[in-house]
Amino acid sequence: NETFDFTDHSHRRYNPLTDSWVLVSPHRAKRPWLGQQEAPSKNDAPEYDPKCYLCPNNTRASGSSNPAYANTYIFPNDFAAVKLEQPKLVESKGDTLKNRLCKVESVRGNCFVICFSPKHNLTIPQMKLEDLTQVVSAWQTLYSNLAKEAREEGKPYKYLQIFENKGTAMGCSNLHPHGQAWCLEAIPTEIAKELKSFKKYKDQYGTDLLGDYVKMELEEKSRLVLENEDFIVVVPYWAVWPFETMIVSKSKIPSVDKLNDREKKNLASIIKELTIKYDNLFETSFPYSMGIHQAPLNAEGEALNDSWFHMHFYPPLLRSATVRKFLVGFELLGEPQRDLTAEQAATRLRALDSKVHYLEKL
Amino acid sequence: NETFDFTDHSHRRYNPLTDSWVLVSPHRAKRPWLGQQEAPSKNDAPEYDPKCYLCPNNTRASGSSNPAYANTYIFPNDFAAVKLEQPKLVESKGDTLKNRLCKVESVRGNCFVICFSPKHNLTIPQMKLEDLTQVVSAWQTLYSNLAKEAREEGKPYKYLQIFENKGTAMGCSNLHPHGQAWCLEAIPTEIAKELKSFKKYKDQYGTDLLGDYVKMELEEKSRLVLENEDFIVVVPYWAVWPFETMIVSKSKIPSVDKLNDREKKNLASIIKELTIKYDNLFETSFPYSMGIHQAPLNAEGEALNDSWFHMHFYPPLLRSATVRKFLVGFELLGEPQRDLTAEQAATRLRALDSKVHYLEKL
Ligand SMILES: O=P(O)(O)O[C@H]1O[C@H](CO)[C@@H](O)[C@H](O)[C@H]1O
Ligand SMILES: O=P(O)(O)O[C@H]1O[C@H](CO)[C@@H](O)[C@H](O)[C@H]1O
Repeated sequence: NETFDFTDHSHRRYNPLTDSWVLVSPHRAKRPWLGQQEAPSKNDAPEYDPKCYLCPNNTRASGSSNPAYANTYIFPNDFAAVKLEQPKLVESKGDTLKNRLCKVESVRGNCFVICFSPKHNLTIPQMKLEDLTQVVSAWQTLYSNLAKEAREEGKPYKYLQIFENKGTAMGCSNLHPHGQAWCLEAIPTEIAKELKSFKKYKDQYGTDLLGDYVKMELEEKSRLVLENEDFIVVVPYWAVWPFETMIVSKSKIPSVDKLNDREKKNLASIIKELTIKYDNLFETSFPYSMGIHQAPLNAEGEALNDSWFHMHFYPPLLRSATVRKFLVGFELLGEPQRDLTAEQAATRLRALDSKVHYLEKL
Repeated sequence: NETFDFTDHSHRRYNPLTDSWVLVSPHRAKRPWLGQQEAPSKNDAPEYDPKCYLCPNNTRASGSSNPAYANTYIFPNDFAAVKLEQPKLVESKGDTLKNRLCKVESVRGNCFVICFSPKHNLTIPQMKLEDLTQVVSAWQTLYSNLAKEAREEGKPYKYLQIFENKGTAMGCSNLHPHGQAWCLEAIPTEIAKELKSFKKYKDQYGTDLLGDYVKMELEEKSRLVLENEDFIVVVPYWAVWPFETMIVSKSKIPSVDKLNDREKKNLASIIKELTIKYDNLFETSFPYSMGIHQAPLNAEGEALNDSWFHMHFYPPLLRSATVRKFLVGFELLGEPQRDLTAEQAATRLRALDSKVHYLEKL
């Protein structure tokens, strides 16, 4: 009488943050791959690139020049997806089919680029802890400043999405270490889903979803990748991307600006350790999209009380530096499907060195 | 006094099928692209490839050989994501944190590969209408057979997801023209969302969401790409992918098996015309993931009455044969963002030849 084996038998896991499911088919990892090959990372970039619009002193698309910055540097995105000012969108009235089916909202806001370092050829795992701590400080400053501008100057800022696309496989077109921050007058879909889930969980159990989740993962340990005084890194039970992880604060912190000095340093440190592990996994500069989920700017009531600081890392690589997972046909039309369990991914990540980057060993 | 211009000002559009939003930033199409380049399509593949596991007479991974098939050919996927039999998953009982946060279900089912043609170097837009009509017939047979096996033999089949991944950019590893069909004992997330939306709309307005949508698009015309007696092709108002389209039946047809002969031919014909337009857009073999959304197998009651046959096409290319859209950082963490409006995409697709493929003109 065979028993159900999660590493061999297909199952679906539920994502309580987004109210959706993922299909886990661990035996599928065995299939051969004849498809697209990703470009392996090159390590021969110079520390300063005269053609890079993010390097210190260089001129950008807008015509303005970057200062000779020493650690982080924030500037407005020259190709912003949302802008501070635009004409008012007059609502279309009446109960027509069009109004039933084509809902639309104007979105103002602001987009920023955050250079992590003046050095063109660095990546987060290669940065000094002090410099990475400066990046967290820059996120804090940005969050506080935008919240203040919304409060005091009536700027249309409601949610600040801080993120990084790393590597060409994740649509990044400049390897200079940088992230982005898009600030909108609307709560983005993914955040709205999480806030709804946090509220639902609290209504049902009286506790915080992510607080309970941290407690559970610290007991279970099978999906735990890293831990320090203030944060854990886990491959979430419902992970979609092969080596997807989540950094979650151990105590309830609504947003990045509320991190105290120790928490700030511990966040920088666990990001560094996680990304060193990532690079060590396939001995390549590991691509990913990552970002912070936190309370809306100037949140009050439920939105403030239910928010719990966490970061998602979505890395595409599956088997090697050149073979990625494609979330395509079945995934787009049906539901996401993965080829290894969250526990298998966590076991592999746990086993890797988090202190010494593979390039330092060469 | 400037007025709001949808082709210039940022806005969010609501997707009533999935209850989510998309951020539209049309002015962003102007930004330069220095990132990843896709491989342009090669047209030098042979009609028969001795190494292709989908060509007639060749041996597959499982060891079995393909017959000398003449039009379509369906066989079980050698690396199936779900299987017909596996041990029972014993439900974990008790109100523990783990049970609150880690919901899981066993999923059985079956996966099939559908070769569209014996000719290795064809693609859908290049196939004869008669042969493409055979593909629709193959989908019909598969749907009916699986429904019957579920009914009469108790097979664990509830939903049949028919799809095609075309091109290496969409994770396809074999250019031999083929699609897939994954049959699960669960309703996949995307289908569950649509069924919920159909019900909600009907409860609210007493009519069918997609029926009203077809009516509205036929009046508006700005997003209409193709139309025949039985189907329309539109760039949906809430499209995410740059040239995303939807084929929708004009009358209510719950599933592919219910298409009569005329509808079957008209579906094949509109798929051919749409994919010819796609290839003509950037004069390349246009990659996409596409698939059918329809009623669950043996559906009854609401699930049957609310279902409305439609197909989604999700193509990644944005500006040229080699520059795609990346749905990454902001899209994964916040919400999907697009760089041209649905109407702009429809205008471009509408203007293209739907009868003569660019390769025939060379
Ligand atoms: O089944 P294939 O063609 O080997 O694989 C492709 O389609 C599947 C279904 O969308 C995806 O899960 C895979 O990531 C993709 O590479
Ligand atoms: O802003 P970038 O780096 O030019 O562009 C990248 O990130 C954006 C935000 O995730 C995406 O919309 C783009 O598709 C991607 O190429």
